[in-house]
Amino acid sequence: MEVNVSRSALLMSDSAFAGRPIEQREAINDSRGHVAELLAKAIRKGALDEEITAEDRERMLAFLRSFGDLRADYVYAGSSRAGLRQLPGAGDIEEQTREPLPMYALLDASFWRGLAQEETFDQQATMLQPVGGMDRIAYAFARRLGKIIKFGCPVKEIRKTANGVRVVYAERGATRSLEASYCICTLPLSALKSVKHDFSPAIAAAINQTSYAAAFKIAWESRRFWEQDDNIYGGISWLARGPISLENSTLANLWYPSGGLLLEKGVLVAGYGTEAGAFAALPTAEAKFAASRSAVEKLHPGRGRELTKPVYVSWQKIPFSLGSWVRGDGYFEGPYKEFLKPDGRIYFAGDFCSHLTVWQEGAALSAQRTARMIVEHVRANLA
Amino acid sequence: MEVNVSRSALLMSDSAFAGRPIEQREAINDSRGHVAELLAKAIRKGALDEEITAEDRERMLAFLRSFGDLRADYVYAGSSRAGLRQLPGAGDIEEQTREPLPMYALLDASFWRGLAQEETFDQQATMLQPVGGMDRIAYAFARRLGKIIKFGCPVKEIRKTANGVRVVYAERGATRSLEASYCICTLPLSALKSVKHDFSPAIAAAINQTSYAAAFKIAWESRRFWEQDDNIYGGISWLARGPISLENSTLANLWYPSGGLLLEKGVLVAGYGTEAGAFAALPTAEAKFAASRSAVEKLHPGRGRELTKPVYVSWQKIPFSLGSWVRGDGYFEGPYKEFLKPDGRIYFAGDFCSHLTVWQEGAALSAQRTARMIVEHVRANLA
Repeated sequence: MEVNVSRSALLMSDSAFAGRPIEQREAINDSRGHVAELLAKAIRKGALDEEITAEDRERMLAFLRSFGDLRADYVYAGSSRAGLRQLPGAGDIEEQTREPLPMYALLDASFWRGLAQEETFDQQATMLQPVGGMDRIAYAFARRLGKIIKFGCPVKEIRKTANGVRVVYAERGATRSLEASYCICTLPLSALKSVKHDFSPAIAAAINQTSYAAAFKIAWESRRFWEQDDNIYGGISWLARGPISLENSTLANLWYPSGGLLLEKGVLVAGYGTEAGAFAALPTAEAKFAASRSAVEKLHPGRGRELTKPVYVSWQKIPFSLGSWVRGDGYFEGPYKEFLKPDGRIYFAGDFCSHLTVWQEGAALSAQRTARMIVEHVRANLA
Repeated sequence: MEVNVSRSALLMSDSAFAGRPIEQREAINDSRGHVAELLAKAIRKGALDEEITAEDRERMLAFLRSFGDLRADYVYAGSSRAGLRQLPGAGDIEEQTREPLPMYALLDASFWRGLAQEETFDQQATMLQPVGGMDRIAYAFARRLGKIIKFGCPVKEIRKTANGVRVVYAERGATRSLEASYCICTLPLSALKSVKHDFSPAIAAAINQTSYAAAFKIAWESRRFWEQDDNIYGGISWLARGPISLENSTLANLWYPSGGLLLEKGVLVAGYGTEAGAFAALPTAEAKFAASRSAVEKLHPGRGRELTKPVYVSWQKIPFSLGSWVRGDGYFEGPYKEFLKPDGRIYFAGDFCSHLTVWQEGAALSAQRTARMIVEHVRANLA
């Protein structure tokens, strides 16, 4: 494992701030300052006397001064928490705070969505990451299992037998099959759709009802201008209204590398979203690269031209994945429940059998659950 | 350099939460939820119609829903941002949020001060740290300078000569002196007080007027129970009212190690403050250790007994430091200005010559400033 430095960094709303990139600390702390000032005003007017006791009133006002970094007269006039116009230095160089951003500019719920991302329980900055990438975890399991794993053998059929299961697969052009007492099917449902089977009608229907999101990433190699010029080390920048549209959102994002800090070059992900809207409509990879470069240029003016060697990966086109994760709408209310129960000797496991879909942790927890179910079944049959 | 993982962690108020340690995310997000709910209420009552235009009213309400994670009816009923009672898992294990903390319990300005520490411009989580500690930076300069540095030679006198400076010092019992065209005096003012000199009356007065704070740290070796039992990796926990009183504050703190993650043992700092109040009055190191252990026990019940090998360091007792940093009161308005100007061929440099007192960065910026001043003086004399 290596340690992961990840701090959210820049963001911008290209309407309210006239295209100027602003630091997240600026948006976060100026928002809090304005909110605290407004609430203090309402309390001092007596507008919340029904909600707040006389005793709590003074405590609340003292709290709001601290919460929003208000002046003694409960006005928010900017705060060093929001970043500095001039850093303190030697001699007569004194710290200078910024003018606060105007409140109306911050009143954008979709803008705040980017800021709140890091507060989301499973979207917080990671602290450790596997050296070499997340798939090193799967390969570490594979190494322990050894020759029992067959690589390069796409599954063609999963069939029930009298006392177990038969799996038909292709191996170097030949069709082969394997019989066993149990099958744990961990294929993504997107891939399972094209496998022949004799599952129960309920499971067959659940597979058909489930669809997978189509996430993509675009990455570039570049001089680490975000570190060298902008003091950004890891984290995400958000573009409130950018050329890359995300599904149900106008947000786009840049992901800075959380490893290899201070090296000359690094990989910048710009951006990471799902194939939808205007972005999906772009006809070629070149058009998508141009949109990505333009998003980088908006957040880091003058740096778009430094991006080289673009890569575009769309998960729906990756063989044997055919998508990124189960689409949420109605999944847990319906299909999900079917995959939790075995169909004869066929069991399912994977992130789609957990409430932690998308994450490897959900797949691992599901694997433990399924292993326990089989152990119980074996014991019951022995008894 | 090594990467520094630092996340603020636990905190507690031993009155409001009945001694229960709570996570910072819980206090931060529940506070924000309550504030957003109250402000939404005031806005919907029309109490802020003078401050907010009709157009901004709806945008503000949408923003507050996102800001505070409010329900559609603008009520704050808890949020997964505040942490979970049950993590989502496989099968039927669904995420369960916590009951929000009651608003009155969060209305404690001194309590929020701990939460806001990380928002303070120069108190944010560091991302990189020198391997071996901060003094490795000074030693790296020393290595480059080589034999020009005399170690173990306390300065006894700094005197002006006709064309320069004479420094008298002790070396292995003998009194020696050194003459030079310029002197850059980087002694802490606390140590300079006992050096004989013929500085100008203004500088002599400035030295006498300045006093140094007396910070202390207490550290223990322990099993990393904060990592193994509490999932805390670096950062600071705050004790709202603990046995360790800090100057001008009732806060006390625990600092978790930001390096060596996942090792069996680590060093826990509990706490870091200034010698004042009830803590300073404790007569022996043993009494201070007992207070420290009890603070750890409050934040990590049952773990106080795992602390071993305590160390107590009080900076006012460290030879040649004799204190931790310049006390702020009136310093920048008076004495500070004197140290920015040379006294004949004697120049000053150090964090006390910068607005970044306490930090090495202030000392480095001051060193650059002083070096430039001397270069200019030499050039003017050559011309």
